[in-house]
Amino acid sequence: MIGIALLGAGRMARVHAKAISAAGGRLVTVYDIVEEAAKSLATETGASVAHSTKEALHHPEVDAALVVTSSDTHVDCVLQGIQAGKAVMCEKPLAPTLSEAQHCIDTLGTQANKVFLAFNRRFDPGHAALKKAIELGEIGNLEQLTITSRDPAPPPLDYIPKSGGLFRDMMIHDFDMARWLLGEEPVRLYSHGSCLVEPQIGKLGDIDTACVVLVTPSGKQAVILNSRRAAYGYDQRIEAFGSAGMVISDNPRATGLRRYSSTSFGAPDRLFTFYMDRYGESYRREIETFLSGVAAGTPPPVNAIDGLRTAYLAEAAGASLRLGQAVELRNNCEVSWHE
Amino acid sequence: MIGIALLGAGRMARVHAKAISAAGGRLVTVYDIVEEAAKSLATETGASVAHSTKEALHHPEVDAALVVTSSDTHVDCVLQGIQAGKAVMCEKPLAPTLSEAQHCIDTLGTQANKVFLAFNRRFDPGHAALKKAIELGEIGNLEQLTITSRDPAPPPLDYIPKSGGLFRDMMIHDFDMARWLLGEEPVRLYSHGSCLVEPQIGKLGDIDTACVVLVTPSGKQAVILNSRRAAYGYDQRIEAFGSAGMVISDNPRATGLRRYSSTSFGAPDRLFTFYMDRYGESYRREIETFLSGVAAGTPPPVNAIDGLRTAYLAEAAGASLRLGQAVELRNNCEVSWHE
Amino acid sequence: MIGIALLGAGRMARVHAKAISAAGGRLVTVYDIVEEAAKSLATETGASVAHSTKEALHHPEVDAALVVTSSDTHVDCVLQGIQAGKAVMCEKPLAPTLSEAQHCIDTLGTQANKVFLAFNRRFDPGHAALKKAIELGEIGNLEQLTITSRDPAPPPLDYIPKSGGLFRDMMIHDFDMARWLLGEEPVRLYSHGSCLVEPQIGKLGDIDTACVVLVTPSGKQAVILNSRRAAYGYDQRIEAFGSAGMVISDNPRATGLRRYSSTSFGAPDRLFTFYMDRYGESYRREIETFLSGVAAGTPPPVNAIDGLRTAYLAEAAGASLRLGQAVELRNNCEVSWHE
Amino acid sequence: MIGIALLGAGRMARVHAKAISAAGGRLVTVYDIVEEAAKSLATETGASVAHSTKEALHHPEVDAALVVTSSDTHVDCVLQGIQAGKAVMCEKPLAPTLSEAQHCIDTLGTQANKVFLAFNRRFDPGHAALKKAIELGEIGNLEQLTITSRDPAPPPLDYIPKSGGLFRDMMIHDFDMARWLLGEEPVRLYSHGSCLVEPQIGKLGDIDTACVVLVTPSGKQAVILNSRRAAYGYDQRIEAFGSAGMVISDNPRATGLRRYSSTSFGAPDRLFTFYMDRYGESYRREIETFLSGVAAGTPPPVNAIDGLRTAYLAEAAGASLRLGQAVELRNNCEVSWHE
Repeated sequence: MIGIALLGAGRMARVHAKAISAAGGRLVTVYDIVEEAAKSLATETGASVAHSTKEALHHPEVDAALVVTSSDTHVDCVLQGIQAGKAVMCEKPLAPTLSEAQHCIDTLGTQANKVFLAFNRRFDPGHAALKKAIELGEIGNLEQLTITSRDPAPPPLDYIPKSGGLFRDMMIHDFDMARWLLGEEPVRLYSHGSCLVEPQIGKLGDIDTACVVLVTPSGKQAVILNSRRAAYGYDQRIEAFGSAGMVISDNPRATGLRRYSSTSFGAPDRLFTFYMDRYGESYRREIETFLSGVAAGTPPPVNAIDGLRTAYLAEAAGASLRLGQAVELRNNCEVSWHE
Repeated sequence: MIGIALLGAGRMARVHAKAISAAGGRLVTVYDIVEEAAKSLATETGASVAHSTKEALHHPEVDAALVVTSSDTHVDCVLQGIQAGKAVMCEKPLAPTLSEAQHCIDTLGTQANKVFLAFNRRFDPGHAALKKAIELGEIGNLEQLTITSRDPAPPPLDYIPKSGGLFRDMMIHDFDMARWLLGEEPVRLYSHGSCLVEPQIGKLGDIDTACVVLVTPSGKQAVILNSRRAAYGYDQRIEAFGSAGMVISDNPRATGLRRYSSTSFGAPDRLFTFYMDRYGESYRREIETFLSGVAAGTPPPVNAIDGLRTAYLAEAAGASLRLGQAVELRNNCEVSWHE
Repeated sequence: MIGIALLGAGRMARVHAKAISAAGGRLVTVYDIVEEAAKSLATETGASVAHSTKEALHHPEVDAALVVTSSDTHVDCVLQGIQAGKAVMCEKPLAPTLSEAQHCIDTLGTQANKVFLAFNRRFDPGHAALKKAIELGEIGNLEQLTITSRDPAPPPLDYIPKSGGLFRDMMIHDFDMARWLLGEEPVRLYSHGSCLVEPQIGKLGDIDTACVVLVTPSGKQAVILNSRRAAYGYDQRIEAFGSAGMVISDNPRATGLRRYSSTSFGAPDRLFTFYMDRYGESYRREIETFLSGVAAGTPPPVNAIDGLRTAYLAEAAGASLRLGQAVELRNNCEVSWHE
Repeated sequence: MIGIALLGAGRMARVHAKAISAAGGRLVTVYDIVEEAAKSLATETGASVAHSTKEALHHPEVDAALVVTSSDTHVDCVLQGIQAGKAVMCEKPLAPTLSEAQHCIDTLGTQANKVFLAFNRRFDPGHAALKKAIELGEIGNLEQLTITSRDPAPPPLDYIPKSGGLFRDMMIHDFDMARWLLGEEPVRLYSHGSCLVEPQIGKLGDIDTACVVLVTPSGKQAVILNSRRAAYGYDQRIEAFGSAGMVISDNPRATGLRRYSSTSFGAPDRLFTFYMDRYGESYRREIETFLSGVAAGTPPPVNAIDGLRTAYLAEAAGASLRLGQAVELRNNCEVSWHE
């Protein structure tokens, strides 16, 4: 049974704690800078409370660390975990900025691909089935990819300034989906963003509605559409079009209910509006993948380098928006544009 | 160009008149006991007005007759048409009662299979595609058949007494669908009917909600569900289940529109509520089939014997309802039950 | 935390054991006439092994018993559990025959409605949502109900003789669904059954393809369709039609994937073929409902009387099939027919 | 009855000729530079053969002209038609190049909005229903628009050089859809195009797979995806997302058939692969709209200025592709970019 140190005791930490237990892992110890939070979660789960990251990581029964702290401490926790010789899984993003992500990768060196970066959507049953269909050749060569990602409602306004902006906070998931599915690193990016949902978001210097085009060396095209609000719930779909067909991962629904009335003519059941309903299964599968990988000693399917590359795309999207122009992307994640 | 005599100038006559022209036939003459009706339709279509069935049928340019008169004159018109040596297409039902239908068949003798009986649903694109899928072996051996047939709203109350009752007036279409798809004549029938939609229909001695089970010699089961009212429009579906799969002819829709809102989550477009929207295409294809069969001299795909057999099933359904018991069906359409 | 005695250690016992733990209950002890089975399950779950039903029921930490033994011992276990003063949940069926079910109810007397009878489909998210929609008045007055229930493949042939036959073994679930949704006890039943799937089932005196019509005092009609085989997986749908609309609980799917190719045009993802994929969630919710009811001291939503009434309908369906006739149903579950 | 002169007697001329008759118009005369083509169509339709555009336009029974000649003669025909005082409907494009389109508009002056430009997709039932839903406020403020337009197969290779390229030949329809639905003229455009389908298309200097982003003054975003090939048939969908919801015009299908088998789990019926199956209804409605507008003396809903503006967007898309950069759009259709 893999022993886990949980770094962070907030909302996502609780999601992961539950998944660890369901996946047959053991939560050994919990650390959070807010000791009350750590205590509360430790009590509920039967884990001990650690008083520092170091103490948590060096607990003798700990095999692996889960980093669920605030974004600005991710890099530090990851590096400490690796130095302590533990398996590490880190919540997205790897770092708040591209330069910090680059620093992390440089420091990790050959260890970078040992850090499991928690892009949970790769483990969503629908998106994973789409990926598998592509790999099985069902659509022939992938040619166009459309990723739609709309949340039910904007986050609280006080979250916006510390979010890093829509591209880093929200579209980061879609950049990961795009890279994962395209199978090639994009060479050009064009973005546009507007503030159409909530004027306060605009006043805080951010956008809430965005569109990005990625182009790959072989000419594949990926489009990402984001909105911070969708009246009908989580709208997170992927459409992959290729030489032999198309596969769509459409929004899942709670049940197969369909309604007919004088105003409704076979309407399917609601979409999800709570993230654990929409993505709970992906968190469970993600932890299972992490734990089984640790047990088997195999490298994680998504790692810190993926964290760097998505950070680079988010940075490029911000630049393209500011410049009003497409930007060229370099394979070494160097900034090619001038602002 | 096939020349047509139209017997009857009511609503369905107008539907057929339009279809005749679109299918490249020529409406030569029109007869109706209400001369004004015949005149009006003749004027619109450029046909002449006939002053009797006989005159219409013996018009030298007439090759074929379309019988769209009131039900109680169908047999007489069909017999006159055949005697006049014309191709005949007759609206359903063949006759108002089983005994009259039997009389017609007896009189027609070997000519019975030359009378095209207008069960238009056989020409509906969806139902015809379902039939074809069965014939192609897509579902293996057919085992269970479910036919749902619900109209948007009950007919005017003054129509009920002359309708012959739900089984003869409405379910007659579904009996034809069942026989056509089963490929075997049923040997037992159980029916139940209730008045749940409109109490006045019950006071007039009829039902508005019904359910019939048919069993075939090989053990196939067919279920028919009828209602005189559906809040959401025409609900006319067929589900054919077999050893290798299932095929469903679901309700068609005007467009591929789907709506999402805070109360609607991908709701498809409306169902049809006007019979010409729902069944217009079937009428067009029916007339085309009739005209091309007349031109080619081939026998009609659905004939007066089908009219007799559906009349027999309607009669049996009425008896089963009154008896509260299943009734046995004989291949010669003889009444096996005692009321 | 509710302490549970598990009577039986077979396949369904394991399903329930897992659900108990996930629902926050505690499995205290396990009894099975095959002691190895009990030991194995006890070891896996940390429970003790009991050497008799009595020992299990009287364990001081046991609050409730789960009866998952073979059908012929259900009544005895239920009665012992109630006599021991424990809350009892019993797998379906209550008893192998109508007379034994009647005996159980008579013996239980006023306690009958305290026995939770495990008709898991009431807890299926789709079917429960359909029930709720009806209760909320979304379809007005329920008028016609269609329940389709087809399994992916027939059970092993050696199970057939001890199954009690299709009506008692398989359609029992659908009888419960029908009663639950109709809100009235049926007054007449007509059944037909055939052996179309597997000739050996016929040789063993059973059927594999069946159709039943139920009629209620107010004229509502329910149709149940069963097949022991569906090429495409679990096909378990409910369609409830009423004065204001219709609601359908369609087959759920693993994901929202849709495929397009030269032979597939938006085909949805597979149906389930493994019972735990199809019904796992219903088992989880069932146990949660049981445990929370025990904790709250509230009566179960489905009880031994439901077990009796479904046994009565299964008995009537068998009689109707043998007689080739509809049978009248009495509210006291007395047999009205003569064979 | 409106009398029509048909200029051109090719494939689309035949489509329109049939629609004219069905809509109650009268085809008076036909002109084509290939006299045999004109004769053949005239014979079939009972029209006369004209020997020049001028003769056709000045026929005394002609009220309106339909321009279905090769693209390079559209402007000349339109101008002659207007000068002759006739109502004019012109097939898309208005002109082969932006400068010729601009010249046409300049010459037409205030008459430009009297020329009906035949963007047939505005009359497609699904797309028109989507437009109406937006106008009714169903989705609140439109924020993101996704237009997918994929043809079943590339055109013959010899058509490519005279097509004007994908943006002018194919995406022109989508530019019109975008402008029509956005309700604002775009101010920036970014395009990317690749040759992924047919290498010969690339050798001819064209692309077959393209993606364009349009941005409006208020920050709305429109994405257009084109491919010259889709394995599954015509894939022409529109998705309009707004503050209160989303409406999708999905691909229509011939029937409501759904198939279940061991490899198919409720698969809907085929998409269309023949343009008249997919768009026949739009051509019928387009002609009806034209004829009823001529009869009523009302201006056409889509006119030559729409032809100019779409030509401008096509030109801009080509420039953006060549430059690898976004281009700014001016309201007067002036070229803002430097190549």
